[in-house]
Amino acid sequence: MIIIMQTQATPEQVRAVEDEIQRIGLRPFINPGVERKVIAVLGALDAKKADLVEHFYSFPGVERVDLISHLWKLASREYHPEDSIVEVAGLKVGAGRVIIAAGPCSVESEAQMVEIAIKVKESGAHMLRGGAFKPRTSPYAFQGLGEEGLKILTKARQVTELPVVTEVMDSHEVDLVAKYADLLQIGTRNMQNYPLLKKVGATSHPVLLKRGQGCKIRDLLMSAEYIIAEGNANVILCERGITTFEDSTRSTTDINAVPVLKHWTHLPVMVDPSHATGDWRYVTSVSKAAVAAGADGLLVEVHNDPPRALSDGPQSLRPEKFDTLMSQVRRVAEAVDRSV
Amino acid sequence: MIIIMQTQATPEQVRAVEDEIQRIGLRPFINPGVERKVIAVLGALDAKKADLVEHFYSFPGVERVDLISHLWKLASREYHPEDSIVEVAGLKVGAGRVIIAAGPCSVESEAQMVEIAIKVKESGAHMLRGGAFKPRTSPYAFQGLGEEGLKILTKARQVTELPVVTEVMDSHEVDLVAKYADLLQIGTRNMQNYPLLKKVGATSHPVLLKRGQGCKIRDLLMSAEYIIAEGNANVILCERGITTFEDSTRSTTDINAVPVLKHWTHLPVMVDPSHATGDWRYVTSVSKAAVAAGADGLLVEVHNDPPRALSDGPQSLRPEKFDTLMSQVRRVAEAVDRSV
Amino acid sequence: MIIIMQTQATPEQVRAVEDEIQRIGLRPFINPGVERKVIAVLGALDAKKADLVEHFYSFPGVERVDLISHLWKLASREYHPEDSIVEVAGLKVGAGRVIIAAGPCSVESEAQMVEIAIKVKESGAHMLRGGAFKPRTSPYAFQGLGEEGLKILTKARQVTELPVVTEVMDSHEVDLVAKYADLLQIGTRNMQNYPLLKKVGATSHPVLLKRGQGCKIRDLLMSAEYIIAEGNANVILCERGITTFEDSTRSTTDINAVPVLKHWTHLPVMVDPSHATGDWRYVTSVSKAAVAAGADGLLVEVHNDPPRALSDGPQSLRPEKFDTLMSQVRRVAEAVDRSV
Amino acid sequence: MIIIMQTQATPEQVRAVEDEIQRIGLRPFINPGVERKVIAVLGALDAKKADLVEHFYSFPGVERVDLISHLWKLASREYHPEDSIVEVAGLKVGAGRVIIAAGPCSVESEAQMVEIAIKVKESGAHMLRGGAFKPRTSPYAFQGLGEEGLKILTKARQVTELPVVTEVMDSHEVDLVAKYADLLQIGTRNMQNYPLLKKVGATSHPVLLKRGQGCKIRDLLMSAEYIIAEGNANVILCERGITTFEDSTRSTTDINAVPVLKHWTHLPVMVDPSHATGDWRYVTSVSKAAVAAGADGLLVEVHNDPPRALSDGPQSLRPEKFDTLMSQVRRVAEAVDRSV
Repeated sequence: MIIIMQTQATPEQVRAVEDEIQRIGLRPFINPGVERKVIAVLGALDAKKADLVEHFYSFPGVERVDLISHLWKLASREYHPEDSIVEVAGLKVGAGRVIIAAGPCSVESEAQMVEIAIKVKESGAHMLRGGAFKPRTSPYAFQGLGEEGLKILTKARQVTELPVVTEVMDSHEVDLVAKYADLLQIGTRNMQNYPLLKKVGATSHPVLLKRGQGCKIRDLLMSAEYIIAEGNANVILCERGITTFEDSTRSTTDINAVPVLKHWTHLPVMVDPSHATGDWRYVTSVSKAAVAAGADGLLVEVHNDPPRALSDGPQSLRPEKFDTLMSQVRRVAEAVDRSV
Repeated sequence: MIIIMQTQATPEQVRAVEDEIQRIGLRPFINPGVERKVIAVLGALDAKKADLVEHFYSFPGVERVDLISHLWKLASREYHPEDSIVEVAGLKVGAGRVIIAAGPCSVESEAQMVEIAIKVKESGAHMLRGGAFKPRTSPYAFQGLGEEGLKILTKARQVTELPVVTEVMDSHEVDLVAKYADLLQIGTRNMQNYPLLKKVGATSHPVLLKRGQGCKIRDLLMSAEYIIAEGNANVILCERGITTFEDSTRSTTDINAVPVLKHWTHLPVMVDPSHATGDWRYVTSVSKAAVAAGADGLLVEVHNDPPRALSDGPQSLRPEKFDTLMSQVRRVAEAVDRSV
Repeated sequence: MIIIMQTQATPEQVRAVEDEIQRIGLRPFINPGVERKVIAVLGALDAKKADLVEHFYSFPGVERVDLISHLWKLASREYHPEDSIVEVAGLKVGAGRVIIAAGPCSVESEAQMVEIAIKVKESGAHMLRGGAFKPRTSPYAFQGLGEEGLKILTKARQVTELPVVTEVMDSHEVDLVAKYADLLQIGTRNMQNYPLLKKVGATSHPVLLKRGQGCKIRDLLMSAEYIIAEGNANVILCERGITTFEDSTRSTTDINAVPVLKHWTHLPVMVDPSHATGDWRYVTSVSKAAVAAGADGLLVEVHNDPPRALSDGPQSLRPEKFDTLMSQVRRVAEAVDRSV
Repeated sequence: MIIIMQTQATPEQVRAVEDEIQRIGLRPFINPGVERKVIAVLGALDAKKADLVEHFYSFPGVERVDLISHLWKLASREYHPEDSIVEVAGLKVGAGRVIIAAGPCSVESEAQMVEIAIKVKESGAHMLRGGAFKPRTSPYAFQGLGEEGLKILTKARQVTELPVVTEVMDSHEVDLVAKYADLLQIGTRNMQNYPLLKKVGATSHPVLLKRGQGCKIRDLLMSAEYIIAEGNANVILCERGITTFEDSTRSTTDINAVPVLKHWTHLPVMVDPSHATGDWRYVTSVSKAAVAAGADGLLVEVHNDPPRALSDGPQSLRPEKFDTLMSQVRRVAEAVDRSV
């Protein structure tokens, strides 16, 4: 940690900061700057740095406190250089093969879910996605079938033998959803719902953690750290688009996030091009981009009849378009020495 | 609702949209555009529009679907022209007087909380703020005292007779927090935690709903709609800064949101300049701006010893600075025909 | 154009809008909405719509004015469905082959420029990039060699027979730069420098128009429209990253912009992964993503000695890394049925 | 400057950085970090730091280079603690009185301009604004009257004796506009048009520098530095809204920018609530906020007949509404110990 004093800071103010550093058991180290003093703080435990930044910033005469290291540790590649592989019902995510999860936004009926599940399996998908508990911006929009939806997902899994990823929205529903799901999804609106993160962290279930639309990559990693710190290291990260001033698409896919995450963390990284664009016309293009950039997997919304979908119809692909996507993505994956 | 067809849409595609509009019991109305067809949809219930936009956008030949009206109704000023007044333990928010809630970010100890409470009351604050359950970006940062903190808040309320606002982070803690708090705060990270919104909506407790950092004003109003739709109309909105590319402050205070919200909704609007700037040096200036813009209240972080604060020290004012803030804000409030 | 009246609009206000529509020679068409009136305006010339939106929005009782069509016409794919091909000194951009322009951020010396030029040609680049007039955020940073730099570029072109792209920053330097450059670059800071756009529009030189960091895709197309409206249709668009709240990279590559632009316009689209990430470690990954998404070309910064570069060293690749990039990009291009 | 090495940096890489620091005549100072080395660079000239950050970031083993001081110097309050006062035709900006510039977006005719000028003077405005050269997003929108508009502005000045602020868009029009204008406006699209900044910097005319919509506060100060470095210290900064994800207003007024700029620079700060909201309904509210926050002046669009305005009608106030704004702003100004 580096404490940068104001140019006008008095010797007493510098001294007070030094004393405080020593009082809490750390070592101050003063850089002999010409214009201003810069104090390095040596010996701080990573786990304490978040609090210490704020602590020292409040001292009179302090201009800024900068961290030298990131605040996450368990999620950091610096302490865990090799890639992590997360197993989802026997399927390895992060092990070279690009994993494609496909299915409808919402589970609507058994007939719909099973039909789509069979179709996406035929096209080569490795996992089923489908929402039973749906976080919808409007209270008047379809809210999902709840446990009934989870049972339908189980049925689709039986028929296709594909593992299932589905969202859990509330800490007291974790046990319920975990009974049915192979991979627990934390949605974008809940990336910083810490009671929920702690609860899934207390299970050994694999977790798909979606980035909050207004959250930095570093905050995504801090949320992953919450889960791992509770004992569950089976975390897959998911870039799903961020809010920006650009309004031609629902979100802006932060494609840079793929190599940045690969640089900063050992956790697998998936991309959700359906939510990140909000428009089926752009999904195939962005899917190929994500795989080319190095993503370990994709989440793609597929619906047998988008105009009749109860949610997210505009961004859902018909099965035949998904089939095209799969064949195109497969070629791109091979071009970057991976398979699908 | 207006459905805009692509210029190349075929007559069959236009017909299919018209047929669907009629099939679901609504009336299509075609505008004779030269370049393309535009179809107005008449008769849709507000409560169904969110789903219908997505529904029609998925039809072949559709370029765009635009809503003519907002998706919120209970929160809308169009259906409720007069200002709502929300009562918090006898204190009226939205009734002309600018309500100031002040106190530390986190409740740390009874001595600290009571001391600050007495100080802010002396300066004229109307409400106490203080966090017992703390949502922290880092799992290693101080997480709050939990129920112990709630009890301390109660003690501070007894001493000062000021009502208390504090955050509830999880749906199954609503009953617990509601036992102690006069005003339930939904924090920025939970603005779209719908199970939590529904749960507070099922109580009759007044709710302070903070805007998500990455959420549009329209999303804030949809979240308010969730609470009101459950039967609880005692909602106060709070602008607390949004994430933008500007990095000299922790967030960007969206001051425009004050008049926009006043135009769109009848609900009271507060502003939190402490989080919206993240820097105590800017809090007084932005507090005055918020009141001048028409805010019904402020949330201000005050700490007796910011460098020793367990959270948010950098943005906390010392009691003497808060006293100055109060006297300055009072003058601005009078200049816009309000009182403090 | 659609004019949406307020719910409380009076019949007189609706009438005034109708009268004005007729007064200026257009036809009003009223939709019989239940809650509010919606008036379609028929017959407006595209070229006038920008002014008309503002015009009608100012009428009392008007809530909103929405455009049905985009404001650009010459750049629109609706009126020009087939892809445009822009020729740069015989090189076809937008014709299937992915065009790679490579070279240093700034031209620093003949030795440097020629050495890099030879290297990037050996790796398969099709065009040289290099700045002679440099727009630098700081007035104290290296500002480029000016005309001397242009002469050096010419030398590098002679040696390698590769065409040259370089930036022009001011309308009165267009003629000078056009004497030396094969492709005139309008930089991100000048995307809305309309005198400059008009000036390059008055030449027949091909133009590379970079997106402004804070500008929407629709604004990029309006700026292209400025150039084309002056008579010069040889416009190549370039996505180079936008400013967002994410701060782990210098900009956020808007990868969605590639398919959106391909949907909206017939103009070729290039991507600049060097500026869009600001970090050489991420350039190769994002280059592959851009090509997979459908970009017609890349602009890549290459420097023989990044630590000694006078600008943009951090985002420059060494020639050997660029060579790797080329071989990887070539494979991705083939996977999407293109060549390099 | 602080150079932060990667945890895996080798002793040779650390040595290479140290050597380079000494080679260019500066002093390295190594902090004995446990996890990684942090090297302070002592003795660098401010004017060179922008280049040096990039220089060292390109060295192998370097994780990050952080600046300790800001890159601007002439604009910095650290070197010039007292407020600067800029004189515009005898009117002092930054001297306590809040200066209000008012008038139409575009000069349309002498009758219009003079009528509005007389009206705003009656309401107490101190300066006239009006555009002769208009930067419009669409090439088909009204582009301004050019020199004819400047002559009309002169006429309005003669009638009212109010100084005139108007925009200059191109470096070779600076002399022309300077003949007529008392205050040269650099518009938001040209904040980083460096040839233009240098040209106005070479005059002694006062300059109103508007913030680019996608530009950080630090970039605004770097652009001011360009002007001052050329010898012209008569710079007034103007916050006019930034682009964010919020779309209920045209831009987001960055009200935080007022106290941040007051902290970082000695230059006067104005706010343009008309462009920052894009909606006349919000202009008065945000005007009061700006003055309460500490702005030294306002730019307000006023039009005698907004629906007939050739540009920016939606955000223009009618003279009677402007009169109300003035009386309200006057009261707020007094509440913060200023006058209007």
